[in-house]
Amino acid sequence: MAGDNRTPVTVIGLGSMGRALAEAFIDAGHPTTVWNRTPGKAAPLVARGAVHAEAVETAVAASPLVITCLTTFEDTRRALEPAAVALNGRALTTLNSGSPAGARETDAWAAGHGARFLAGAVKNVPSAVGAADTLLYYSGDKTVFDEYETTLRVLGGDTVHLGGEADLAALYEMSVGAILLPALVGFFQGAAAVQARGLEAGTMVRFAGKWLDMIKSLLPVYAKEIDSGDYTDAASSVNLFLEGAAYDEELARETNVDAAWLAPLHDLVKRAADAGHGDHSISALTEVLRKPAQAV
Amino acid sequence: MAGDNRTPVTVIGLGSMGRALAEAFIDAGHPTTVWNRTPGKAAPLVARGAVHAEAVETAVAASPLVITCLTTFEDTRRALEPAAVALNGRALTTLNSGSPAGARETDAWAAGHGARFLAGAVKNVPSAVGAADTLLYYSGDKTVFDEYETTLRVLGGDTVHLGGEADLAALYEMSVGAILLPALVGFFQGAAAVQARGLEAGTMVRFAGKWLDMIKSLLPVYAKEIDSGDYTDAASSVNLFLEGAAYDEELARETNVDAAWLAPLHDLVKRAADAGHGDHSISALTEVLRKPAQAV
Repeated sequence: MAGDNRTPVTVIGLGSMGRALAEAFIDAGHPTTVWNRTPGKAAPLVARGAVHAEAVETAVAASPLVITCLTTFEDTRRALEPAAVALNGRALTTLNSGSPAGARETDAWAAGHGARFLAGAVKNVPSAVGAADTLLYYSGDKTVFDEYETTLRVLGGDTVHLGGEADLAALYEMSVGAILLPALVGFFQGAAAVQARGLEAGTMVRFAGKWLDMIKSLLPVYAKEIDSGDYTDAASSVNLFLEGAAYDEELARETNVDAAWLAPLHDLVKRAADAGHGDHSISALTEVLRKPAQAV
Repeated sequence: MAGDNRTPVTVIGLGSMGRALAEAFIDAGHPTTVWNRTPGKAAPLVARGAVHAEAVETAVAASPLVITCLTTFEDTRRALEPAAVALNGRALTTLNSGSPAGARETDAWAAGHGARFLAGAVKNVPSAVGAADTLLYYSGDKTVFDEYETTLRVLGGDTVHLGGEADLAALYEMSVGAILLPALVGFFQGAAAVQARGLEAGTMVRFAGKWLDMIKSLLPVYAKEIDSGDYTDAASSVNLFLEGAAYDEELARETNVDAAWLAPLHDLVKRAADAGHGDHSISALTEVLRKPAQAV
């Protein structure tokens, strides 16, 4: 069901996330043009109502708003290079992982081709695209965000513009995302320990979920400590974590789980204690993580 | 307001958590006896209605249920040693951090003194003691749990008996707890990166909270993969995390944050990819963490 009043959108890059984006636009009635290097991926979207462009230039030319969902910023620029002329005057929005530097390069590249640029990041899995509370970060050209905000909200109800600098979305995506791998490895470590006892990892899920809720409840407290630099009102001190470190290694030995990855975390805790933060909040680890400014 | 029908309870160890436990019992109308090596800590509890025992033997003799909240299992046994005779026939419940091995030693020690033993763990901060959804794990003597369950629920509404083996509470406490330090260091890393850009860590909190919700929603999926050993239906693959690793290091350089602690995490991801798990779910890292069984 195409709505003639809906902004035409082009989606470039049809991996699992790109397909989810295109489906959301199609289902919301946006005339949707899709392109992928491997054309086979477009077929199910065409069946759903999308137009498949044979060439990337045609795809870019088809819509005022061009959304790319490729693996990296470099891939994005490479894929769009043949469409450089068509980009002139259009709004380009990237939705991929990458560093702030990659976003800045793409911003300059887009400006060089006369495109307005909005860098975005989806903080979720493809199946969450379109949900009311799905978070998408954007930064860069605010005129693009304002003009297409309703269209962008099709992808997730929690759509945020972080500021005019194009690299802010990548900065936040990565800074917030920095919790993921370590948290998961912690969970996998626990799962392996429970399994070593002949119990299922599934038995941990309810408890681990509550534990994440507890961690979530602490974040405003830690952020306040970090922003004020006052770590003295410690709910959980560096020394408390230092005591826990020995148990972690004992449990790993007992359950035959590799704890080598924990050693540098324990070392950070030890360095914080050595730097006089023993009785301070564990958030004082931020001070240890921050390297001294380099001499110019 | 003392209730004559309420079980008398003794709380030994009056650090911030021990004080919170004693306060909860006092407020719920349990005749509460307290003891601490440093007696001064008892004063505010006495003002609230507790009885302060001068000697640990008197404290143990005062109640059928004795709850200790000392730093380690070793500290607990050492503190209780002068009260060993009084322990005979009583129910001893420990609420401290420690390894499964420490719980087993304390179980044997308690049995040797004729005490029934229930090992517990509070999965929360002192201020959460008494709340309806506060989780406390127990394991060990089920008769103690059944007899005193109502009393134990004073400390938290989500009170769970994990099984008859005394070390299960420590195993779960540590396995679930394994998420905490790595998740926090991930948050601190992100906070330092955002601050390096002149922004407040507080700006990350709402986003990081949603991110933890997203991680929570993935745990049942990962647990199922780990329990089944089938990692082929990957929402987020090992290779996806491998690509992300390079960005993490790039961001750390740009924001002058120490990323050394991330190297062994990235190495785990690389080892999983090398072991043929590249297209598998990131939960396949569990296979890499699990050491091969040692030759006997």
